[in-house]
Amino acid sequence: MAAAAAAGAGDGPEEVPNRRVVLKRYVTGFPSEDDMELVAGAARLAVPPGSQAVVVKNLYVSCDPYMRNRMSKHEDPSYVPDFVPGEVLVNFGVCKVVASGHPDFKIGDLVWGMTGWEEYTLIPNPESFFKINHPELPLSYYTGVLGMPGLTAYIGFFNVAKPKKGDYVFVSAASGAVGQIVGQLAKLTGCYVVGSAGSDEKVNLLKTKFRFDEAFNYKKEKDLNATLKRYFPEGIDIYFENVGGAMLDAVLLNMRLRGRIPVCGMISQYNKEQPEGTRNLFCLVAKRVRMEGFIVTDHFGEYRKFEEEMVRYLKEGKINYVEDVADGLEKAPAALIALFTGANVGKQLVAVSRE
Amino acid sequence: MAAAAAAGAGDGPEEVPNRRVVLKRYVTGFPSEDDMELVAGAARLAVPPGSQAVVVKNLYVSCDPYMRNRMSKHEDPSYVPDFVPGEVLVNFGVCKVVASGHPDFKIGDLVWGMTGWEEYTLIPNPESFFKINHPELPLSYYTGVLGMPGLTAYIGFFNVAKPKKGDYVFVSAASGAVGQIVGQLAKLTGCYVVGSAGSDEKVNLLKTKFRFDEAFNYKKEKDLNATLKRYFPEGIDIYFENVGGAMLDAVLLNMRLRGRIPVCGMISQYNKEQPEGTRNLFCLVAKRVRMEGFIVTDHFGEYRKFEEEMVRYLKEGKINYVEDVADGLEKAPAALIALFTGANVGKQLVAVSRE
Repeated sequence: MAAAAAAGAGDGPEEVPNRRVVLKRYVTGFPSEDDMELVAGAARLAVPPGSQAVVVKNLYVSCDPYMRNRMSKHEDPSYVPDFVPGEVLVNFGVCKVVASGHPDFKIGDLVWGMTGWEEYTLIPNPESFFKINHPELPLSYYTGVLGMPGLTAYIGFFNVAKPKKGDYVFVSAASGAVGQIVGQLAKLTGCYVVGSAGSDEKVNLLKTKFRFDEAFNYKKEKDLNATLKRYFPEGIDIYFENVGGAMLDAVLLNMRLRGRIPVCGMISQYNKEQPEGTRNLFCLVAKRVRMEGFIVTDHFGEYRKFEEEMVRYLKEGKINYVEDVADGLEKAPAALIALFTGANVGKQLVAVSRE
Repeated sequence: MAAAAAAGAGDGPEEVPNRRVVLKRYVTGFPSEDDMELVAGAARLAVPPGSQAVVVKNLYVSCDPYMRNRMSKHEDPSYVPDFVPGEVLVNFGVCKVVASGHPDFKIGDLVWGMTGWEEYTLIPNPESFFKINHPELPLSYYTGVLGMPGLTAYIGFFNVAKPKKGDYVFVSAASGAVGQIVGQLAKLTGCYVVGSAGSDEKVNLLKTKFRFDEAFNYKKEKDLNATLKRYFPEGIDIYFENVGGAMLDAVLLNMRLRGRIPVCGMISQYNKEQPEGTRNLFCLVAKRVRMEGFIVTDHFGEYRKFEEEMVRYLKEGKINYVEDVADGLEKAPAALIALFTGANVGKQLVAVSRE
């Protein structure tokens, strides 16, 4: 108690319960809810004296496929640090500042950034957080269409794929957080857009709510090469790659001259002990195709421009957005697993506190 | 004889023997000399009246790995037309004009372009041929360092890989027609360059004649990932891809942030019924790598600029060049097969006639 008091900010820290989702063990193969655990904890709603930290109350946390990589132990340092067994999971979330030692953040500020899967999180370096400029829209949107996945779609499509009006665009995992935005941005650019998804419900969403020109359920297709030839008799100019595996191999056979493949992710491979091999890479030569990986955090400098443009599209009804909200931290492990079984419909997130 | 006379250009066509190498049958798997055949034929050293064709005497013809693709029957039209059984093989070669109906070409002109594996070839559209501006250099160089493979190296390295001084560059098939030029262009650009090849003799050539910083015999390496980590402790900025397969997978694990992989060819895969799978493509995301295929014929507009620059390097001794010359059309089938067994040392070509 003496130590706790010493860490207080002047008038004594208030200690509150803080439930948190921790990684129970490193994952191999397909993850399960049991690989995570909801545990009790405590938080002090005050920052260490003299620090520029803030304490946030977490409102919404995002479930994103890339988190799977962080659940395994890697020998080589990956592009993101591995989670640590016994420690809280972290990812992008929407938060309210409840204590601040930083001049740019005051109590009550709404922000989004990298936070914990818990009720309250101490953020030592809040400079990486964005303030939420449009709280008139649902705050949860800042885990998706107005947050990391939305910017991912925007950067991958415009900066990496460099689309032209009339381009033939194919999007896999098309009803997901990124795919639904890519497809709609492509339609706004004057492209022809086809999406694939893993259920008829999602396919219907693509064709109605998200206004894709065509969509198909890849689980019902026996020969993906033939399927793509049917939807793209002229070939594919842009393939927005979210899945890898058999779909990528079929796409390579159907790329058009000087096509582009922004590589956003390869969700079909994340739970395999050894990734599937891609056999048709020679098509890169024959069709002069560019395949390029990117990571959205390299492009956070473009966030404010993106945010204003996307807010305008949302308010004008030019972009629709579907999210799948799990209520409460206790639902968080199942929500994360849903990404890999495809149980979610639209962008998966967890409402930690609706307040 | 009446028809032959009618086809003559005024003073009657001279008919001469014309040995030619034809494709005997479509190839599956590893090609053999028996898949080709040297047959007797005849040529008229005159162009059809009123045409703008030329007839050339073939001096040197080039053996290039991409020819393997043309020896099989493809359902989908590939980027180059398939050869036809019973018909002469064609590829780039160095020729002398012996008859011309074209105002830009006169008898005696030295040219290079797409010609037949035979003694004489009728070229209906000679506009695609380049005149040889530097006959003071060995004419055979126009099948290699001053021809298609040289321009391939130049375009792939400068236009596609976009090198910077100090970049770490890895070249596979490094003693071949393209590889030896890429490595030396990289050294001239101030890069650190390592090459792989399939024999100690070739490795020695890389380190001495071609001035690579390091080189290794990939056939002696048990773990290519470990090998590359040894030669590139900081990672690879540019991988000039000539081979595909296991080497590509090892390279992907060792790419540096924002690395580039110009894809020139994948010779290790051309004779496989089904290409090997590449498993480590997720590295494109983690390291934001760009992988881009290209074909030199798209860039022939840059040939004259390239020719002058390369001639200067050759005359100043800044670029060395090693070729492997098979003498006579009867050696041509074996020379082509050598590319796939690795028996050639340096750029493989066939001297049809030294005259």
